[in-house]
Amino acid sequence: MALTGKERLLAIVGDRFLKIASAVFVVLLALLFATVPAQAQTDPLPSWNDGAAKKAIVDFVKDTTTPGSPKFVPPEERIATFDQDGTLWVEQPLYSFVMYALEQVPALVKAKPELAKAAPFSTVLEILKGDRAAMAKLTMPDLEKILAATYTNRSVDQFNAEVTKWLAEAKDPRWKKPYTELTYLPMQEVLKYLRANGFKTYIVTGGGQDFVRTYSDKVYGIPPEQVIGTAGVLKYMVAKHGKPYLFKEPKVLLNDNYTGKPEGIHLMIGRRPVLAAGNSTGDQQMLEYTKGGDGARLSMLVLHDDAKREYAYGPAQGLPASKVGTFTQALYDEARKQGWIVISMKDDWKKVFAFEP
Amino acid sequence: MALTGKERLLAIVGDRFLKIASAVFVVLLALLFATVPAQAQTDPLPSWNDGAAKKAIVDFVKDTTTPGSPKFVPPEERIATFDQDGTLWVEQPLYSFVMYALEQVPALVKAKPELAKAAPFSTVLEILKGDRAAMAKLTMPDLEKILAATYTNRSVDQFNAEVTKWLAEAKDPRWKKPYTELTYLPMQEVLKYLRANGFKTYIVTGGGQDFVRTYSDKVYGIPPEQVIGTAGVLKYMVAKHGKPYLFKEPKVLLNDNYTGKPEGIHLMIGRRPVLAAGNSTGDQQMLEYTKGGDGARLSMLVLHDDAKREYAYGPAQGLPASKVGTFTQALYDEARKQGWIVISMKDDWKKVFAFEP
Repeated sequence: MALTGKERLLAIVGDRFLKIASAVFVVLLALLFATVPAQAQTDPLPSWNDGAAKKAIVDFVKDTTTPGSPKFVPPEERIATFDQDGTLWVEQPLYSFVMYALEQVPALVKAKPELAKAAPFSTVLEILKGDRAAMAKLTMPDLEKILAATYTNRSVDQFNAEVTKWLAEAKDPRWKKPYTELTYLPMQEVLKYLRANGFKTYIVTGGGQDFVRTYSDKVYGIPPEQVIGTAGVLKYMVAKHGKPYLFKEPKVLLNDNYTGKPEGIHLMIGRRPVLAAGNSTGDQQMLEYTKGGDGARLSMLVLHDDAKREYAYGPAQGLPASKVGTFTQALYDEARKQGWIVISMKDDWKKVFAFEP
Repeated sequence: MALTGKERLLAIVGDRFLKIASAVFVVLLALLFATVPAQAQTDPLPSWNDGAAKKAIVDFVKDTTTPGSPKFVPPEERIATFDQDGTLWVEQPLYSFVMYALEQVPALVKAKPELAKAAPFSTVLEILKGDRAAMAKLTMPDLEKILAATYTNRSVDQFNAEVTKWLAEAKDPRWKKPYTELTYLPMQEVLKYLRANGFKTYIVTGGGQDFVRTYSDKVYGIPPEQVIGTAGVLKYMVAKHGKPYLFKEPKVLLNDNYTGKPEGIHLMIGRRPVLAAGNSTGDQQMLEYTKGGDGARLSMLVLHDDAKREYAYGPAQGLPASKVGTFTQALYDEARKQGWIVISMKDDWKKVFAFEP
């Protein structure tokens, strides 16, 4: 085909234009993708001080996610499990899932006035009136009775509604803030950092499974199906008008503490975690189980050694003993022996809470 | 700033060039995205005949995933639960998780020769030698005894290794193929179609949870943490050399049949499914529970009415009765009344298995 001078010129211009346009396209694409590594290079854990704990976390994530690394873990096996109370949020002076049970007692007594004079409910009323010393009167069976009365013998939907209402109104006694704001910013960063690197994050809590599931997604970005907790027997029922629902029976199915943590993890996940974090003797078996797997594994313990910004309790490392979130010296020594990371709240965390100035 | 003639020309050319280049970029981007709807328009369920069942599935997915639709379901709530035996793969002449137990008996007898003459193990040996009539001798307690002997009193790791070995060698008696190839192609398409539309797919099986988890990812693309099944009590143990593991105790924790299905779903997921599929009376409560939620819900039952390509059994709709995967007329009538979709294997499926010509 013969081309006129004008056509030839257009062909040349068109060809040049196409070349230039595709070069521009490549440059624009390159610019687009160039921002990705730049973002990845920003500090993923800005609330952490530089130190052994932060380095261990960052190194672990790099080692397990870099293709070709001898410690590489395929994405589907990147399971990370976190205790909640004392690991992701404040557990002092009392676990919030227990605080919930105590603060539900007035409503319980209103519905059944005869409970007002019956222990342990009468004792709880004294505590709520400000008699802190009455707390010591509560035995473990008392506590179980209170938990059964406030967590069971109702439908799942009713329970969820009661918890949601309480969480919206209840305030922590020290900071006068909703419990859901008392999460540790550095641990929130770890959760996000892990998820950004293909890890599936789970909560494995001694607290009530249904309780934690009401807020886990909003507070931690962890959906209900990734919350494992102490769970009761359920009973499938069909309402008179034909609507089926689940009723919470007053019987424990899974006590998600101590050996119950790895047992619950297998029941609900079916894989051994590659990373786990806890803060007390109730987490010991989960950390052992995690670290006991083949390949790269990271187990971590949060040590509450910061009375100023949060609380200081152990009794590990000479810290005051505590019945809530007990961290014994034996656990501390096992951590050191097994190569678990001990996170010092005082030394490792720049900030504890997001609301700090 | 004064511009020379050449500079002015360059500025104009540069400006025009930028305008053209960005137009090209927009066009290229548009072309890039234009391929997406084109792909979405291909048939997502090619092994299904056009009919009420296929239409119901496609309409449901469109309705629940189209933003602004009154039936829209947010991605995090798109939970779909599937029974396995008879819904995702063949369950006749016997559930493969039971076939596994029977075929493990010779190894059991080899380890403990005294079992060779003790019922029910002696009966199983007769069945395996070809005495089909001996099958009728097995009572429910017999079966429980055999399941306990082959599924429990060993570590999770040992059990997984035994199942994996069996699955690699065992063949179905009719097609002489590995059990893992006897999945229904149309249901595999439904699983993929749902996942491509943001649904999280779960197996909810009466079979052993650990059993199904060994192959669920490979066979269905469903990871172990999305398999809910009949599960036993676990015991956390630490080996002499210090390695922690889980031991399968001979005690049932969750019987994932009938009411156990919705109970297991809440325990493991904590949300009510929006879609569920089953094929027998053991799935009835899961389908009721699913359909009983607010908003758009789809419950489905597979009817085995195709003796030529698979099996025909009920006794719904005059099909022969079966102890394995019983589908009563009452269940069929409830399905029609409640608006559940009944999938006719004969009429709704173009192909049953991927290996068909």
